[in-house]
Amino acid sequence: MKALVYQGVEHLTYEDVPDAAPDIGEQLIRVEAVGICGSDMHAYLGHDARRPAPLILGHEAAGTIVGGPRDGTRVTINPLVNCGVCPACEAGRENLCPSRQIISMPPREGAFAQYVAMPDANLVEVPDHVSFQQAALAEPLAVSWHAVRLGLEALHQGMARDALVIGGGAIGVAAALALAAAGVDDIVIIEPNDMRRAYLQSLGSFNVVEATDDTFSLVVDAVGYSATRAAASHHVQPGGVIVHVGLGEDAGGLDIRRMTLQEITFIGTYTYTAEDFRKTAQAIFDGRLGPLNWIQERALSEAADAFRDLRKGAVAAPKIILAPWV
Amino acid sequence: MKALVYQGVEHLTYEDVPDAAPDIGEQLIRVEAVGICGSDMHAYLGHDARRPAPLILGHEAAGTIVGGPRDGTRVTINPLVNCGVCPACEAGRENLCPSRQIISMPPREGAFAQYVAMPDANLVEVPDHVSFQQAALAEPLAVSWHAVRLGLEALHQGMARDALVIGGGAIGVAAALALAAAGVDDIVIIEPNDMRRAYLQSLGSFNVVEATDDTFSLVVDAVGYSATRAAASHHVQPGGVIVHVGLGEDAGGLDIRRMTLQEITFIGTYTYTAEDFRKTAQAIFDGRLGPLNWIQERALSEAADAFRDLRKGAVAAPKIILAPWV
Repeated sequence: MKALVYQGVEHLTYEDVPDAAPDIGEQLIRVEAVGICGSDMHAYLGHDARRPAPLILGHEAAGTIVGGPRDGTRVTINPLVNCGVCPACEAGRENLCPSRQIISMPPREGAFAQYVAMPDANLVEVPDHVSFQQAALAEPLAVSWHAVRLGLEALHQGMARDALVIGGGAIGVAAALALAAAGVDDIVIIEPNDMRRAYLQSLGSFNVVEATDDTFSLVVDAVGYSATRAAASHHVQPGGVIVHVGLGEDAGGLDIRRMTLQEITFIGTYTYTAEDFRKTAQAIFDGRLGPLNWIQERALSEAADAFRDLRKGAVAAPKIILAPWV
Repeated sequence: MKALVYQGVEHLTYEDVPDAAPDIGEQLIRVEAVGICGSDMHAYLGHDARRPAPLILGHEAAGTIVGGPRDGTRVTINPLVNCGVCPACEAGRENLCPSRQIISMPPREGAFAQYVAMPDANLVEVPDHVSFQQAALAEPLAVSWHAVRLGLEALHQGMARDALVIGGGAIGVAAALALAAAGVDDIVIIEPNDMRRAYLQSLGSFNVVEATDDTFSLVVDAVGYSATRAAASHHVQPGGVIVHVGLGEDAGGLDIRRMTLQEITFIGTYTYTAEDFRKTAQAIFDGRLGPLNWIQERALSEAADAFRDLRKGAVAAPKIILAPWV
């Protein structure tokens, strides 16, 4: 099969590799659409020790089951594989399983390829009216759905529910959509990149600004850098909640003094539970997350260019979806 | 009346000052016992811009109402004064009231004095079997009661409830007592000061260690420095909760990468709600917070020495209680 292989810092090759080989309990999936995640970019830049070269990256995929009783079934992939029997798994917190794996991290190859192998339990069937591109968005949307759920659960009932989302990338846009689906009306996205901001504004679905002086009961840091955490701890209201997604910088930024004096809660979030993933997929299928039209499609064979353009900040759309078969 | 006046960095005077003068709705309290808090020490060292000299510090007080229909009533004082009508107050989060005041911070003088004035609503009657020294502990105990309540409420139901308390000062000891009162069995206190640790161990009520390799579902940082926050984010289990009390250093220490990958929640906490204060006082009265025998009594007239001894780390007991009338 053809695959995009991460060979080292800022070096990707599109080449023939052995076909993905499903293990017992796994399905072979013909990948029809696969998104580029910020964490793929992080690995591409050599910043993720968990993703050593050579490696097939990519974990936001949808496609079709090949072979077996479910041959031809259209599915979206929950890329998080867990043990199922530890206390975290039994508590429905599969993302905290000590044995968790994710495709695109050894020992599992990723989905920037024509095929990928995946446990059957990780596949969510996709109805015909939903495109593979939309279905591939289930993964990043689930990240934000999960983060927003934790944030809203932690928010004191006595507070008005309004939200600031820091960052207009896919996770930020997905957070705004998850917040709207959860009934939050007043949602502002901060996006400093002029081109990205203009693109999002042109869609007409989001309130996107360059900066704000307001404070909010819930702040979603959808970037994860020291500067964005500083902004989050500045813009959150007393008694409010910061939800943190992203691994931009390992430490720093939070105004702990203010967070202590004003009783602010900070929640680190990572991926999603299996239930959150299923609920997100269902929300996509039901149209509750909007038209999902904030994507740009490119060929997997030209993905090296896509990574270079993303690196330059020259992509307006929050998400590039790669097509392995064009 | 006699009072201890903070005159500038590490400079306290014991002198005659005008008697406290209750405003409308306030009571005059004859102070019988008043504790020294870490925040008094912080102010004494010139580190608290909210407490400029000259000022009477002290906010952990119990005493007797003087004059009026309740003359002679023994009370402990909730030192936090709030507006009562803002959204935070209406939500029962008086500690987040934007107009909140606390005695020992302008415009309110503190309780390191023979008398203090206080709104009647802030007074909790103390039964005769409880000493003024025990009653004066209501304030620091309420800080930890509140912090522990928020932490346990945030803890996922799927996790075992065990706790690490960082710091064996009054807030740490109070946190351990509040945790035990809440039904948590496995509680470890870390205290690096040999003298303090030996003192707490000698009481027989606490599991106090110099260091630990274990992890815990709940970690209470009862110190609030960068190093203690680093320890907290190291010792908390995946999916667990850090509760943060204290204003030692304004920023730094948290391992945000680990907190994100392992979904750790950090809750800044400050003082207590009015309900938490009342519940803490009742728990003291009911004996649910133990014998409260971890105090050392001194005369207010000799408080300058007490501050110097605390500064040197030469006080074994977690709490010094001052007596204004001896």
